[in-house]
Parts: sequence; C-alpha cells; structure tokens
Amino acid sequence: MSLTRRSFLGAAAGAAVAADGAPRCNAQRLRRHIEELSVFGRPAGGVFADGVSRVGFSDADVAGRAYVRKLMEAAGLKPRIDAAGNISAVRPGSNPKLEPVLFGSHIDSVPSGGNFDGDLGSLAAIEAIQTLNERGIVTRRPLEVVVWTNEEGVAYGVGLLGSAAAAGKLPSGYRERVWNGVKLPDAIRKIGGDPARIETAQRAPGAFHCYLELHIEQGGTLDKAGIPIGVVEGIVSIDRYESVIRGFANHAGTTPMPERQDALLAAAKLTLAVNEIVRREPGRQVGTVGHLTVSPNAPNVIPGVVTHSIELRDMSAAKIAKLAEAIQARAREIAAETRTEITITKKDHHASAPATPLVQAAIEEAASRLGLATRRLPSGAGHDAQMMATLGPMGMIFVPSAGGISHSPRELTLWEDCARGADALLHTVLAMAS
Amino acid sequence: MSLTRRSFLGAAAGAAVAADGAPRCNAQRLRRHIEELSVFGRPAGGVFADGVSRVGFSDADVAGRAYVRKLMEAAGLKPRIDAAGNISAVRPGSNPKLEPVLFGSHIDSVPSGGNFDGDLGSLAAIEAIQTLNERGIVTRRPLEVVVWTNEEGVAYGVGLLGSAAAAGKLPSGYRERVWNGVKLPDAIRKIGGDPARIETAQRAPGAFHCYLELHIEQGGTLDKAGIPIGVVEGIVSIDRYESVIRGFANHAGTTPMPERQDALLAAAKLTLAVNEIVRREPGRQVGTVGHLTVSPNAPNVIPGVVTHSIELRDMSAAKIAKLAEAIQARAREIAAETRTEITITKKDHHASAPATPLVQAAIEEAASRLGLATRRLPSGAGHDAQMMATLGPMGMIFVPSAGGISHSPRELTLWEDCARGADALLHTVLAMAS
Repeated sequence: MSLTRRSFLGAAAGAAVAADGAPRCNAQRLRRHIEELSVFGRPAGGVFADGVSRVGFSDADVAGRAYVRKLMEAAGLKPRIDAAGNISAVRPGSNPKLEPVLFGSHIDSVPSGGNFDGDLGSLAAIEAIQTLNERGIVTRRPLEVVVWTNEEGVAYGVGLLGSAAAAGKLPSGYRERVWNGVKLPDAIRKIGGDPARIETAQRAPGAFHCYLELHIEQGGTLDKAGIPIGVVEGIVSIDRYESVIRGFANHAGTTPMPERQDALLAAAKLTLAVNEIVRREPGRQVGTVGHLTVSPNAPNVIPGVVTHSIELRDMSAAKIAKLAEAIQARAREIAAETRTEITITKKDHHASAPATPLVQAAIEEAASRLGLATRRLPSGAGHDAQMMATLGPMGMIFVPSAGGISHSPRELTLWEDCARGADALLHTVLAMAS
Repeated sequence: MSLTRRSFLGAAAGAAVAADGAPRCNAQRLRRHIEELSVFGRPAGGVFADGVSRVGFSDADVAGRAYVRKLMEAAGLKPRIDAAGNISAVRPGSNPKLEPVLFGSHIDSVPSGGNFDGDLGSLAAIEAIQTLNERGIVTRRPLEVVVWTNEEGVAYGVGLLGSAAAAGKLPSGYRERVWNGVKLPDAIRKIGGDPARIETAQRAPGAFHCYLELHIEQGGTLDKAGIPIGVVEGIVSIDRYESVIRGFANHAGTTPMPERQDALLAAAKLTLAVNEIVRREPGRQVGTVGHLTVSPNAPNVIPGVVTHSIELRDMSAAKIAKLAEAIQARAREIAAETRTEITITKKDHHASAPATPLVQAAIEEAASRLGLATRRLPSGAGHDAQMMATLGPMGMIFVPSAGGISHSPRELTLWEDCARGADALLHTVLAMAS
C-alpha cells in the first residue's frame, strides 16, 4: 500500500473543535494513519487485526519509518535522522530561546505484535502538530516530535536503543552485537544512522523542557476500571536474573527416583518459588520465569542442566532486592533437596524512573479540561520515557488496552480511546509549551 | 586409527582356560576390540574416556560397522547385511536342522555417549565365537551373531530400528521420516540395507532357539551391590505422553500476578506432580519429564504455551496406567488453579518384555559354573531383546555400570566386569546351544 494523496486530503475538514473551543485532534485521520502504518510488517494476506511484525531494523521497520517521515513532512515538519537512527523534527515556538517540549514514541514492534504499542504515541504526536497547524496555534516553546529507534529491543537485545543513545546510556559492547548475521553498526546505518558518530545523538541534561509520551497501558487496569486516561507515576525498576541449575543427565529408565539429580525438577520448584515469593506480600510487584531451556532435552534423559530467567519488577528497588534475596535463599534449599547446584546471577538492571509530579499534574489538568477521568498508575513496562527521565522532567499518558493484552495481534485500544489519548497529549503539550 | 594386523596377533596366546577346564573369553582381546571400536565417533583429539558419538547411520557408525565386519571375518564368520542394515553371521552347529542360538547387541550410540553401551554385547558375541574357534568347540545348534541397526533411535526417532524390522514392528510412516535432511530409506541404503525389500529382514516366530544379549546395566544396582552378573527379569513397559499446556502469553511487566495464565507455572506444578505421584508408592517405577519447550520463551513475556514429555516405566503396565490416571487427575486440578488448558496425550507405548524363565535359569547356572554371583533385576532401559522376545525365548545378561552412569562419556564398566559378562554369555550360549 502506498501513501496516496487521499490520505492527506480532507484532513482539515476532520479537525474538530470542542464545545468549549479547545482544539481536538482529528480522530479519523489518526485512525487512518494507524491503519496505514499497520501494513508495514503485516502478515502476508492478513488484515489489521492480524497484527504486525515490525522488528527494529527490519525491512518493515525501514518502510514504516519512511511512511512516518512522509507524515511529518505533510504536517509541515522537516524530519532529520540522528546518528542513532532516531527520527525527530522541531516546530518552532514564538520564543526560539526556550527549550522545546519533546514528545513521541516508537514504531518498532515485537514479532507478532499489535498496531498500537508505540504507533499510537508516534502518530498522535504528529497529529498534535497537524491539529495546531490547522488551528493556527503557535506555542511559546518549540515543539519537537521524536520517533525512537528499536524500543522493543527484539533486535540485538538492546531495548530503548534510540533513547538510550540520546541519554548516553548504550550498553557497553553494543557495537559487537550481531543479529540475523548483521552487526549492530550496520543495522544503524541501514536506517540512516551513523554509528561512528553515535555520541552526537546524545542530548544534554536539560536540553528539553519536558518529555511526554502517550502509550497504551499494556495492562488491564484502565480497561477494567473504565477510565480513559492513565497518569503514569513512573516506570518500574526491572531486574533480570539468570538461574543456571546443574544436575546430572542420566538414563531416565535405569536411574531410580531417589538417585536422580534432576535439573528440571529443581527448576520447577524454583519457578513455583518465584511465584509464591512475589505473591505473598501485597503490592503491584511482578515476577516472571519467561525463558527456560533444558539440556539435553530428550524424553528419555533426566535433565542435566536447566537455564532460566527470573525477572522482577516494582517501583521500589528495595522491594525487588528483598524478593531476590528470598528467592536466593529458597534456591539454596531447593539445591540441597534436589542435589543440584543452582547459581542465580543478575544479568540486567533498569532503575525505576519516577514521572515528574508537575508533569503528572499537567496531564491531569489537561484531561480534566477535556472532561476525561484519570487514574494514576505505575508502568510495569519499560518505555523510552525512562531514558528521557534521566535528562529532564518526564510524563506519560496511558490509554486502555482492551483486556490488558499487548505484544499480541489481539492488542487493541478502541479508536475513541486513541483519540482521547491524543487529545490529552495535545493539551498537555499546549500547557507545557505555554 | 586403522585396524592393524597386530590387533589380531596373539589372540590364541591370550585365550584362557579356567582351572575347571571351562573355556574363558580372551579378556585382553575383548578390551582391545572395545578400545579399537571406540575411535569411530571419538571427539577430535580425544581419548577413550572422552566417550563417543556414533549415532546410527552417521559416518562414524558406517566406519564402526566396517570394523565390526572385519572382526567377524577374523573370527571365521561371513557377515551379511540384511535389508534393514543388521549385520549377522552364522557359525554352523553339528546339527544344521536346528534353529540357531542368536546373540548380539548394537554399536550405535547416543551423542556424547559411552564406549560400553551396545559395544560390549556386540564385541563379546564375536569374542565368544573366536574363543570357541580357538578351543575347537562345535556346538550342536548353529550360533548366530547379530549387530542391530540404530538401537538408540537418536536418528529418526526410531529406536530398536533393526530389531523392530526383524520383529515386523517398524512404526507406520517410518519411510517418511527425515533426519539431518536425509530420508530414512536413504539412510538404510547408506549402511548397505535395502529399504525396498525391508520385509525380508523379518524373522519368523520360532526362527531362533533363543535370543541372548549381554549389556551394561546403565543403572547402579549391580555396582552398588558389588554383584558382577545381573539376570534380567524383563524389559519394562514404557509409556510416553505429551503434555500441551495453553495459557496466555502476555506482557511480564504489565500483567498483574492474579490475572496471569502462565503455562510454565502450570508445567512446573505438573513436573512436580509427576515426581510426587511416581514416588509415593513403593516399587521400581520411574517417571521423567525430560523434554520441555516454552513459547514464546522470552524473559519479559509470560509463557503462553509449554509442551513437555512425561515418560513412565515399570514392568507392570497396570501400574503405569494407574500412575498416568493419577497424573491426569492432578493435571485437571492444576489447569483449574492456573487457568490454563492441559492436554496429556499418549504418544508411544512399548509393552514390557519378560525374559524367558528357562533362559534366566540358564544364565544363573552359567554364572554359577564360573563362580560369579548373580542378581535378578528388571531392565529400565529398552533393548533390542524386547523385540526378539516377541519372536521367541529371550534372556539378557547385565554387568555393572560404575556409578550407574550411562549415555555419557563417563559411562564405565571395569574391564574385569566386561570379561565376566563375556564369559557368562559364552557359557549361556554353550548351554542353550547344546
């Protein structure tokens, strides 16, 4: 599907103004853009509801990025690509000396993902610009729209890649990472970046007035409560551990039950322990064993080695540390019970990123002006906003995910909720930029 | 390493005769043959203790089979290869009208296996012939030595392939199986078989007087008890099930603990249940979850689907059925507790194969004549003998596996135990062939 003229015609006709005179985004145009973007990475022969596979740096990602750049140009912007591949564009304000209000999201997806995660925030940011153009509104501060590179991190295992580069927080050794046979620097070049000058993508602390991001909740809190706008309190801390369990691989027919050193039996006990330990105290903390491999992995061989992930998330790093300690203690007991050796090593740590109280208040005021109910909630998922929070004030707007489903073709945010989120973004941008 | 003349020189010099005048195998020669066979599939640069990877139909298997044929020829035999690739050779008896005593084993291994599983029984069978030659003993019945094709079944997932062909029990659809890009019929041709005429490999019921097989125990019973000769009561029944657990893959950060449908959590519970149910009653039954896969298998996604094996073994099919029922019942509870869907399907069934009491008695008498202590025990592992048991009388001789370890480079049977086993085989053959 190519971007036709028709896509952009009738845009002004759709621009809405509320009874109170406050501008509204063009809900129809926003929907059309989300639908048009969805074809890049859509399964062959599929429809919108079949979701999308637009993994960062893939051909679908390259095509999607080209589409987004065209949308930016249609909104009067001049998109540039920084050395990390981030696409951004500035709309001047009346006072060019002021730092811009920065807002946007990402358009890469997980494999077999949905059409709202990232796409909504990116396209609503462009929609906000176009709405202001149509209304002839010039803000005091400049506005800067950004679409970050490889947020999901499916490619190269480096999530938040573009925003990490902007925050000067790329993981060490990232240049050596290879994915699908391609080195990361070559992938960055593929999307128009310049890996040799990647430090030029870095933004200085205070280089923006605040960062705003509209995103789908991905959990079911707003959907269940019937509340259209979530005001994010912050992004949780994420600790990832790798557990390696060494038993002894032996014949499943000839080794009596009491003599076994079954690594998978130990892993099963530890998987249950992670669940029990995380659930036994109140709070929103979560713990997941999502990745597990068995060796030699044959029906007739007692598992000799099992490796699995343990991921813990909460706003409180102290709580996570306490959970991890309890899991380590239980692992020692399980190792003794099963005569295995269990080593749990921390592989990854993302600090929590509280949202700036003033920005949270601005989102609530904007929503209130639009007559939209809000609820504060933490983000259990990581977002580019957490990288921006290391540089300046940050706020995030959530909209409901039907059934709390995301990272799935079944990911769905109702069109009216998309529009409400875009309006909340627009009005928060207006407030922060005035 | 090539087979040198030196390997065969001095053979007669090593032939031993016990004080009682009963013939003994040449222990040094048997050891040398085991060591010489071990180079085919040995890891590059490795030594004997590094084990072997001689997977059926591999180049190492082809080379090992050529070596074994040369040994047979050196023992005055004329090996032939049947349509299923089994190597066999007949030593005439004084009464050519009688059915032969058939004995042997296999020489294929699991990947990173040991040098005794199969090899000992195959080479001890040839050693028995050579000892009889050297002693000038002619048995009343013909003797037939056999080396079966692809016992381990690593290739094509068809274990006991050669003996199954001989018993007319090849699994349906075996011709369509592909492994390492090669169709099974082509693999059979590679080792000299004739897949188009595979039914000619079939042996009629009663076509042999009895089948005997010397094998390492693979478990630790004999080693622990310090008993050199195990008299196998029979080969256990093996039932293999596949458990498919469907939960719902969702974001590990945004999905609250109580709302999860975690397929791996359910699998962990079921893995523990299999262990508990199998262990809660007395007996030698075993139950194993050896194979498990997780989808999508990412640290940050709640597992949506887990598939795992459940293997149950015991001499009593009724006991296995009772265990399977208890596991099914517990699975229904776990599915309800975890809000997942669990389907457990039987994929494979091997009936138990009791050894013939008269043959068991003959083994005990032979061992007694040699001054070797015996113990009766079931075989928890499958063997070609179970296929032969469907055609005629069957008996198996076990020798100790140090530490009960097998299917591992650490697999070890002491050379003196190898010799004792070979002697017990020789004397049982003599008794059954007279």
